Amino acid sequence: MRNLDQYNITQAVIARLAQTPDPRLKQVLTSLVQHLHAFAREVKLTEAEWAYGIDFLTRVGHTCDDQRQEFILLSDTLGLSMLTVALNNDKPKGCTEATVFGPFHVEGAPQFEHGADVANGAPGQPCTVRGSVRALDGTPVAGAVIDVWQADAEGKYDVQRDDLVHAQGRGVLRSGADGRFHFQSVVAEPYPIPDDGPVGEMLRATKRHPWRPAHLHFRIQAPGYQTLVTHVFRDGDPYLDSDAVFGVRESLVANWVQQPDGSYSLDFDFVLNPASAQAPPLTRSTEASPTA
Amino acid sequence: MRNLDQYNITQAVIARLAQTPDPRLKQVLTSLVQHLHAFAREVKLTEAEWAYGIDFLTRVGHTCDDQRQEFILLSDTLGLSMLTVALNNDKPKGCTEATVFGPFHVEGAPQFEHGADVANGAPGQPCTVRGSVRALDGTPVAGAVIDVWQADAEGKYDVQRDDLVHAQGRGVLRSGADGRFHFQSVVAEPYPIPDDGPVGEMLRATKRHPWRPAHLHFRIQAPGYQTLVTHVFRDGDPYLDSDAVFGVRESLVANWVQQPDGSYSLDFDFVLNPASAQAPPLTRSTEASPTA
Repeated sequence: MRNLDQYNITQAVIARLAQTPDPRLKQVLTSLVQHLHAFAREVKLTEAEWAYGIDFLTRVGHTCDDQRQEFILLSDTLGLSMLTVALNNDKPKGCTEATVFGPFHVEGAPQFEHGADVANGAPGQPCTVRGSVRALDGTPVAGAVIDVWQADAEGKYDVQRDDLVHAQGRGVLRSGADGRFHFQSVVAEPYPIPDDGPVGEMLRATKRHPWRPAHLHFRIQAPGYQTLVTHVFRDGDPYLDSDAVFGVRESLVANWVQQPDGSYSLDFDFVLNPASAQAPPLTRSTEASPTA
Repeated sequence: MRNLDQYNITQAVIARLAQTPDPRLKQVLTSLVQHLHAFAREVKLTEAEWAYGIDFLTRVGHTCDDQRQEFILLSDTLGLSMLTVALNNDKPKGCTEATVFGPFHVEGAPQFEHGADVANGAPGQPCTVRGSVRALDGTPVAGAVIDVWQADAEGKYDVQRDDLVHAQGRGVLRSGADGRFHFQSVVAEPYPIPDDGPVGEMLRATKRHPWRPAHLHFRIQAPGYQTLVTHVFRDGDPYLDSDAVFGVRESLVANWVQQPDGSYSLDFDFVLNPASAQAPPLTRSTEASPTA
């Protein structure tokens, strides 16, 4: 274990993982070490670049707080989040596709009755959202727990507002006996992901724009079905083909119809996948199941 | 750019880096994305594992402050630090070998005259350190700036002490006209890296011990020479073959000789590499040169 060089150090680190009791943790860490080392060797990482990377990750960590999750933004903008979604959501044809969870979900949002206004004062054009939750064979799924959250007309989620006093643009509903639900809100608009931190620094250094096409987030949970985390996007949005976080799926783009009075309406139906291989529900809290 | 799947998303992310002005940044980020995605695909990373990883990195970031650098500990324990040292320190035979920088260096440590006691009150057995700084042909290097730092008999660096009032066990000296220097200190002892944070959690989950063999850190800077960052290890230390951060090199192990009065003496000579391909000096500050 002395005199390790660039060629044998990877095997030495892997050997140090040999006593890991959890086989999955051992597998994940072994693969991580191999790919991390392969990256450093491939680019012949300099010591100054290593120091910059340490400082960058430290600043990403220091940017994270209860209202801001910069590591999710980093994962999103490097395509890792959408890759993870793709790896875990290979569903039967006909099921609603999944997309990225994003950094703005909040557990325990206010509960609303059908028809309520989840915008709760958030600025924007009024919009009526109607939908249904069904199984693959068309059977209505009653009592599904439907989390919705969105940015407002100023491109902000409520948690991005310093003067936040109550939840806006987010809420939890339950599907009725017929699987249906409806609520009032405001029209989602395109917005830039927060770019005043290290991730914004990376976007500027790579000449990437920070914009996401307009979308409404949904997380739908029901016993016996795989939890669905997805968005509904707005057709015609200028950023549908260059989403900063690579999350757009054609099947999730819908027509948000403008009404004669200037308000909008959106109709979208969700089809859940049976829970045969259900993964634990996603949260952004520290309660996420560790592998260790 | 819609409907990305686990197979084509990597190329889509790389395409988004196409306008990066700095060619080296483009190369590094492209390789990073490829290897990060290859890791996720290889282990078929689950959404719960992804969420655990986000939370783990966030906690690593939150553990970092002016006195603690948990990302360097993570890099050290995954072997990335020593790999980076190996990639950048391929020197002519006869030069002193480099090893990891570690998280405990402080810029601007107190300056000392030859013979002074850099321990400055740190507990431990007294030790006299004598050395020289030379070029490959034996020419003395005068006026080299020699940073030394070390843990004390309790296994603590000064910056790990809550009651720190002045620097202990660290200082800066200059080599004399004959290339030589000497100072008083205390004997370095083996110590565990800080394991009360997320890195310690990883070590416990993998049944790895946190110990480093006893060592004295040196950073030696002189115009015309590559900066040398290294340690001198103590022969006979029980952790020389299982250093938690993979840093031991046989050529850096020296005999710390106990004297009749119980004190120790260490003699070690350093040979610097010419600066033909000198990298910028390493610091742990935010001044590290970005590639962007």
